[in-house]
Amino acid sequence: MAKDLSSREDNYSQWYTDIVTKADLAENSAVRGCMVIKPYGYAIWERMQAALDKMFKDTGHQNAYFPLFIPKSFFSKEASHVEGFAKECAVVTHYRLKNGEDGKGVVVDENAKLEEELIVRPTSETIIWDTYRNWIQSYRDLPLLINQWANVVRWEMRTRLFLRTAEFLWQEGHTAHATQEEAIAEAEQMLRVYAEFAEEWMALPVLKGVKSANERFAGAVETYCIEAMMQDGKALQAGTSHFLGQNFAKAFDVQFLSKENKLEYVWATSWGVSTRLMGALVMTHSDNNGLVLPPKLAPIQVVIVPIYRNEEQYKAICDKGREIKKQLEALGISVKLDDRDTQKPGFKFSEWEFKGVPVRLAIGPRDLENGTVEVARRDTLQKELMPMEDLGSKVTGLLAEIQDNLFKKALDFRTTNTFKVDSWEEFTAQIEKGGFLLAHWDGTPETEQLIKDETKATVRLIPLENDGENGVCVYSGKPSKGRVVFARSY
Amino acid sequence: MAKDLSSREDNYSQWYTDIVTKADLAENSAVRGCMVIKPYGYAIWERMQAALDKMFKDTGHQNAYFPLFIPKSFFSKEASHVEGFAKECAVVTHYRLKNGEDGKGVVVDENAKLEEELIVRPTSETIIWDTYRNWIQSYRDLPLLINQWANVVRWEMRTRLFLRTAEFLWQEGHTAHATQEEAIAEAEQMLRVYAEFAEEWMALPVLKGVKSANERFAGAVETYCIEAMMQDGKALQAGTSHFLGQNFAKAFDVQFLSKENKLEYVWATSWGVSTRLMGALVMTHSDNNGLVLPPKLAPIQVVIVPIYRNEEQYKAICDKGREIKKQLEALGISVKLDDRDTQKPGFKFSEWEFKGVPVRLAIGPRDLENGTVEVARRDTLQKELMPMEDLGSKVTGLLAEIQDNLFKKALDFRTTNTFKVDSWEEFTAQIEKGGFLLAHWDGTPETEQLIKDETKATVRLIPLENDGENGVCVYSGKPSKGRVVFARSY
Repeated sequence: MAKDLSSREDNYSQWYTDIVTKADLAENSAVRGCMVIKPYGYAIWERMQAALDKMFKDTGHQNAYFPLFIPKSFFSKEASHVEGFAKECAVVTHYRLKNGEDGKGVVVDENAKLEEELIVRPTSETIIWDTYRNWIQSYRDLPLLINQWANVVRWEMRTRLFLRTAEFLWQEGHTAHATQEEAIAEAEQMLRVYAEFAEEWMALPVLKGVKSANERFAGAVETYCIEAMMQDGKALQAGTSHFLGQNFAKAFDVQFLSKENKLEYVWATSWGVSTRLMGALVMTHSDNNGLVLPPKLAPIQVVIVPIYRNEEQYKAICDKGREIKKQLEALGISVKLDDRDTQKPGFKFSEWEFKGVPVRLAIGPRDLENGTVEVARRDTLQKELMPMEDLGSKVTGLLAEIQDNLFKKALDFRTTNTFKVDSWEEFTAQIEKGGFLLAHWDGTPETEQLIKDETKATVRLIPLENDGENGVCVYSGKPSKGRVVFARSY
Repeated sequence: MAKDLSSREDNYSQWYTDIVTKADLAENSAVRGCMVIKPYGYAIWERMQAALDKMFKDTGHQNAYFPLFIPKSFFSKEASHVEGFAKECAVVTHYRLKNGEDGKGVVVDENAKLEEELIVRPTSETIIWDTYRNWIQSYRDLPLLINQWANVVRWEMRTRLFLRTAEFLWQEGHTAHATQEEAIAEAEQMLRVYAEFAEEWMALPVLKGVKSANERFAGAVETYCIEAMMQDGKALQAGTSHFLGQNFAKAFDVQFLSKENKLEYVWATSWGVSTRLMGALVMTHSDNNGLVLPPKLAPIQVVIVPIYRNEEQYKAICDKGREIKKQLEALGISVKLDDRDTQKPGFKFSEWEFKGVPVRLAIGPRDLENGTVEVARRDTLQKELMPMEDLGSKVTGLLAEIQDNLFKKALDFRTTNTFKVDSWEEFTAQIEKGGFLLAHWDGTPETEQLIKDETKATVRLIPLENDGENGVCVYSGKPSKGRVVFARSY
């Protein structure tokens, strides 16, 4: 186990925090609940952004930017949205500071009070639909397929790095359509995009489904979601896509003239993923030696560590290292040659292992003689001596293999920790041990709430592909037409 | 002149606003002073970001992210910084809303008052240097070369789209160094990066220099800047790079153990460019037909417009258009085939001209027969019939030529509107006509202020490469060791 790292088995929560802070991903800031995303963590987020942004553009979306601030009154316009979002938020009341009379610093200038308070956006449906009113007149203006990369603020009382912070970074898509069918198809398409990103880039297996009424987005008709299992058996919601019906169009009076020359309200979707995905990434793959990164998102995919005893060896090995670096970079692999002469190889080994670099190449004097290199993979910690010849294609293959292996490992873990339960006894016994519970439920918010009160578990999702199995609710005994996924969650 | 566009000569200010709003770059939002950046405008900003981000990374910088909010007390820590920045800003005082007692919407919950107010960052030196204190212990931790892409807020009373808005997007670099020399070299390097970006990507000729004391960044020892001339002869500051000395290190107690094992304060720089560059881009190249974009930043570099009389022609020409699109895209050119059958060619011509697309290809039935295409360039509005054969290399060449031509045109304009003035009479007469005035100045803030009061002109910069010419100040008659650039400015 890596030095200074709590063990995953002893203290999962501390293990997570240790990895995030000690692998230089993020840390708490001087502002309560707000984090600093450090360069190494931000480099991973940038890779996520680039992959997602390309997927959004490939599906016809464009980026735009809307204001950080939302007039307070906007939140009252959509009845259920105000309940969900206009509560714990940052409120701007003044627009000026002045020098304090005691000469010690600045104070709020009470003469500079805003007529209407501004809310730092917790999500942007309201300000965006207020804008869309002027952009949409005719069916020719539809669909409108827009995404925004932005920071948002929700004043959380209990925060955890990446998983729940007052300020976080995210993208929010907001689309407008002429028909209900088209809007639903869009919401479902974006759910598939999220699932594909999670599985192919993050090596994170996800379940696709819809939320129960209790867990639905405030203002949505239907909330689609992807859910992943963390190594403690808890669920993490990794992305949501909402079919908003005509709720926001009605709240902000956005109508269009249809092909049939009739005025109709516009249909809407919104969808988002956030820096929370960073938390999911850490919790899914990491181990007691630190962070483990899937190669496709690793800022450094290969690190080269020279092993030497004297200046002459150092020079010769670093020369060879630079040669290999160049060779691998030409194949699109991101490589770091750690030629620091202030640190020993052992120190470097642990550091890069802790930081989750997928492949480590160690080159010593004998390797130089024999034309070999020691190749270590982070996921299995296996080491192998390889000839330098044709190293490029071997490393390329190894990176792909690691990516696949991480996905498979996570999928196996989820499979092993998913249980069909058919009685309340089984349910309560299993939920204590963690994992996903496939259980029958009568479909009512009341039962879900009672189950939550007793076990802290909620319906994580109703699978998109329902098994169609008839049964009876584990709690109420009332009829059910298919199993849903229960779990405790982040 | 394009329909609905004010003329540049009659009303420069309205002409600018017309282009920004009618070419779909940006518009005012429901929140005073905050803009919405529309998809077409944002696509240009994304191209700017990508080019700059690569230049930052190529010079060794990494991205990170720091909190949106800054505790009020942080602003009081650096004496001159507080004067410059802790005045017109958005102040968060509460963190919760509640339902109003009248049942009509939400009100601020007075029980949720923050102990210390939070300021929405107007710039991030304070929160970043508060963070650096924990990141920097030894000379081994230096240099620290970090950049952040973020939104910032300065509560401006008079706002103009892109040029001066309450919220704007920018990047801010914040670096930490072991020596004064290294920090100065960094500030100068980033000024060169900005100048290179402005000239090579934006086709915007800039002067490089340092600011006078009056115009220096609050907290800086030296402010380096690039200044460009707009078509009304006014100056626009397009980017700044600050050598901050040890001011912020002292204010936030950031010390490091040097190689000689001594505790020393860290040396700092910061540097930034913002969405203001979008305003500079519009004002530099556009004309009375609308926006003109340099090819390197144009979201659509080539538009193909089919000219047809019947369905058969439409199909055949669109097929050819798709073929050409594919051919050009293979060369890395961004192409739109405007195959809308709801609009006439004339409408499409004006629309893409107004939106500044550098090259337009029109294909009619006769072109199809003859293997020709009509090529129109946006910068000169010239049209030419070209054979379809080898169109790829011709368009590539034409895009490069347009990029060069726009730069040359802007440079010629600046040269024509730059004047050496040697007396106060000449100065006051010329400043009314606009342009850059190369004049001797005695170097005192008092004289600069008096000149500003009388003419609204300020010292835009003291050229980095001083001409070394001895002279006397145009205003005070006191000795001067070189001309500086005076102008009215945005």
